[in-house]
Amino acid sequence: MFKKVLIANRGEVALRVMRACKELGVKTVAVYSTEDENTYPVQYADEKVCIGPAQAAKSYLVMSNIIEAARITGAEAIHPGYGFLAENADFARACVDNDIVFIGPSAECIERMGDKSSARETMKACGVPTVPGSDGCIDTVEEARQFAERVGYPVLIKATAGGGGKGMREVHDPVELESHYKAARAEAGAAFGNDEVYLEKLVLRPRHVEVQVLADDFGNNVALCERDCSVQRRHQKLIEEAPSPALTDELRRAMGVAAIKAVRAVDYRNAGTIEFLLDTTGKFYFMEMNTRVQVEHPVSEQITGTDIIKEQLRIASGEPMSCASRAPFTPFGHAMEFRINAEDPEHGFRPCPGTITRFEPPAGPGVRVEAYVHSGSKISPYYDSMVAKLIVSGQDREECLARGRRALDEFVIEGIQTTLPFHRRVLDNEVFCAGEATTDFIETQMGDVL
Amino acid sequence: MFKKVLIANRGEVALRVMRACKELGVKTVAVYSTEDENTYPVQYADEKVCIGPAQAAKSYLVMSNIIEAARITGAEAIHPGYGFLAENADFARACVDNDIVFIGPSAECIERMGDKSSARETMKACGVPTVPGSDGCIDTVEEARQFAERVGYPVLIKATAGGGGKGMREVHDPVELESHYKAARAEAGAAFGNDEVYLEKLVLRPRHVEVQVLADDFGNNVALCERDCSVQRRHQKLIEEAPSPALTDELRRAMGVAAIKAVRAVDYRNAGTIEFLLDTTGKFYFMEMNTRVQVEHPVSEQITGTDIIKEQLRIASGEPMSCASRAPFTPFGHAMEFRINAEDPEHGFRPCPGTITRFEPPAGPGVRVEAYVHSGSKISPYYDSMVAKLIVSGQDREECLARGRRALDEFVIEGIQTTLPFHRRVLDNEVFCAGEATTDFIETQMGDVL
Repeated sequence: MFKKVLIANRGEVALRVMRACKELGVKTVAVYSTEDENTYPVQYADEKVCIGPAQAAKSYLVMSNIIEAARITGAEAIHPGYGFLAENADFARACVDNDIVFIGPSAECIERMGDKSSARETMKACGVPTVPGSDGCIDTVEEARQFAERVGYPVLIKATAGGGGKGMREVHDPVELESHYKAARAEAGAAFGNDEVYLEKLVLRPRHVEVQVLADDFGNNVALCERDCSVQRRHQKLIEEAPSPALTDELRRAMGVAAIKAVRAVDYRNAGTIEFLLDTTGKFYFMEMNTRVQVEHPVSEQITGTDIIKEQLRIASGEPMSCASRAPFTPFGHAMEFRINAEDPEHGFRPCPGTITRFEPPAGPGVRVEAYVHSGSKISPYYDSMVAKLIVSGQDREECLARGRRALDEFVIEGIQTTLPFHRRVLDNEVFCAGEATTDFIETQMGDVL
Repeated sequence: MFKKVLIANRGEVALRVMRACKELGVKTVAVYSTEDENTYPVQYADEKVCIGPAQAAKSYLVMSNIIEAARITGAEAIHPGYGFLAENADFARACVDNDIVFIGPSAECIERMGDKSSARETMKACGVPTVPGSDGCIDTVEEARQFAERVGYPVLIKATAGGGGKGMREVHDPVELESHYKAARAEAGAAFGNDEVYLEKLVLRPRHVEVQVLADDFGNNVALCERDCSVQRRHQKLIEEAPSPALTDELRRAMGVAAIKAVRAVDYRNAGTIEFLLDTTGKFYFMEMNTRVQVEHPVSEQITGTDIIKEQLRIASGEPMSCASRAPFTPFGHAMEFRINAEDPEHGFRPCPGTITRFEPPAGPGVRVEAYVHSGSKISPYYDSMVAKLIVSGQDREECLARGRRALDEFVIEGIQTTLPFHRRVLDNEVFCAGEATTDFIETQMGDVL
């Protein structure tokens, strides 16, 4: 196992990784922007290095500063968390070039699966079902039109380098095609410095169901069951649960087999997620792979009894994962995660940075809180707005729903607006409670908050 | 299910029961002494009734006040928690006489198992192994001497009405017999108003291993695995874990079978615990039954995925328990509980009531906190000194130990002395870490804190 690990991130995920390191007896190095100097994760670390001013582009995204911080502190490995440099192949390569272990897959895997178009090709080639889509990039409006007519509307335009909904457009009618195509390319170019797009058949009223995988150097490839992340606003997940209320045991097995096939096809190592769209008939299609740990990983940890971050550390240090003997996994109970963001759901989820005057998280049975704040903490306007994750577990989905209501009611955050009231409303919604939410849930059921 | 339940207790267990009620949609009534008016559980309840001044004998132990509080608020049932009136058959009977459901076993069961001497007889009769002991009370020093000579020293003198170590004496040498016998009777008389004692063979270096049981009106009798509570100071448990590191699967099954036999023998209903002594050769002996929920119930909840308090409510309301289909249970992972008391372990665990100036509990994966305090809360000198319970869970015992260390290090309680440093020291002790602690652990390994 490593002696010292640098965490190239901030906020709750930085703390999450540090806690895992601490439990493994690994020393931690925090890197931080001047804005984050007084945050809890920076205090929690054994050592800390300032890497620049508030703007991520001048600190958390500056590879050379982070590598240099690892060199001067003698950290043998870097955990990138999620976001920032977590899926940046150049960063993974820069680590290796500097004799630092990147805690994640190889740069080649990141590139191969990070390019959504080539990832699709790889999946098709190994027999994992994919949504009917363009074979490669679509370079002109005319090509886009031909594709849409062949598979039928609606279609989805997606950025090859995309993520987080950027450069993505739905086209329901031929007359919208040209304007959406141009808008998607422009947005992709601005966001990723790469304006290539591709097209897919749009699966109507799908669920977003993803399989968490782990792969080590000893040939262990395991699927830690699935997560249902259908409750999304503009492709940003707000609530995730495991297992998916839509899956039968048979479908779970089939999805796990497909996910492991994908892992083997690219000789993947470390933690990753294979995202599928599940249609109303039980057919599922590969959507994309996330070559990093995800915000919603705790729900999988809860129902499988694993610690995914610790497994990442074990795998990256050349040890076998510790959970392989328990595979294949069947879900133990049920878990749900609610993302508590500093956003005002009454006003279009606009960010509400500021100072938390009172922070009292819920507690008791089946309640897990992943936060990095206390009463008096400041939520910075420079970064994403997530303040805390509330994860509830129970013997079944019904208990999870009841526990979620109880825990959300107990949760006190004063001084800023948060998504707490939004989550309380979702737990009053019949469609969600029946386990029938699809990715248009917020649009169709909670339209007034959009 | 009940519509409204009164909780005849205070502190963390009152909050624990209220949370369970809330998750089941049951309204709650808090009863409180003037001293407890501003505590969190009293604020948490839907309704509250003051039942007297601080001294428990004038409030939490006054049956008529509690019954009256239930009548005026229309509560259909009373949950007694643990301690106070939880094992008082007269109180269980008074509830029934007033058409209020007592959430626990029948008054007859409490009497039959509460009298330690008759409980032993019942167990012997149904084939549950018991420690060689006197058949009934020992009324003279001479009788005590005859018994001790027959089974061999050391022997244990115990109060028939006893609990919490009161009226209990170990006799290792014949010359000590008379003085210890007299002291035990005097102490029992003072503590319980009943000075009857009995004698048992003292099992040397035993473990305290207990089986959690649930029994409902539909013939479901289940054992929720065992807890190892060998870390005790003067017969007060300080750390509990599940499963026991000393049990094989075979021994677990045998102990579960014996526990269910005991439950059937007295036609027991609701939650209870059968306590066994386990000797170094793997033989186990019935010690006593606790006819209530115990402080350490959360570790069983963690490894079985059940909510024992909710099962108590279901059973008492005439519903079947919800977990019967998952029996027989095998442990899912490992869990440990640390009792955080307002006591100074550097000075003989003397109580340290006072005001908590800062309370920051740990969080993250595998951490559950059961507390009833916040920063600014006052710990009253009138009641027991428990401030919080820290429960950690992990895939195995090793992960639990690491997580326990991490969580204890994160735990901040300022303003009063607590047992936090004691627990940190136990987690550094080789005997405990090897899973080899017996009931003399604190005496032999942590002697300097006694």
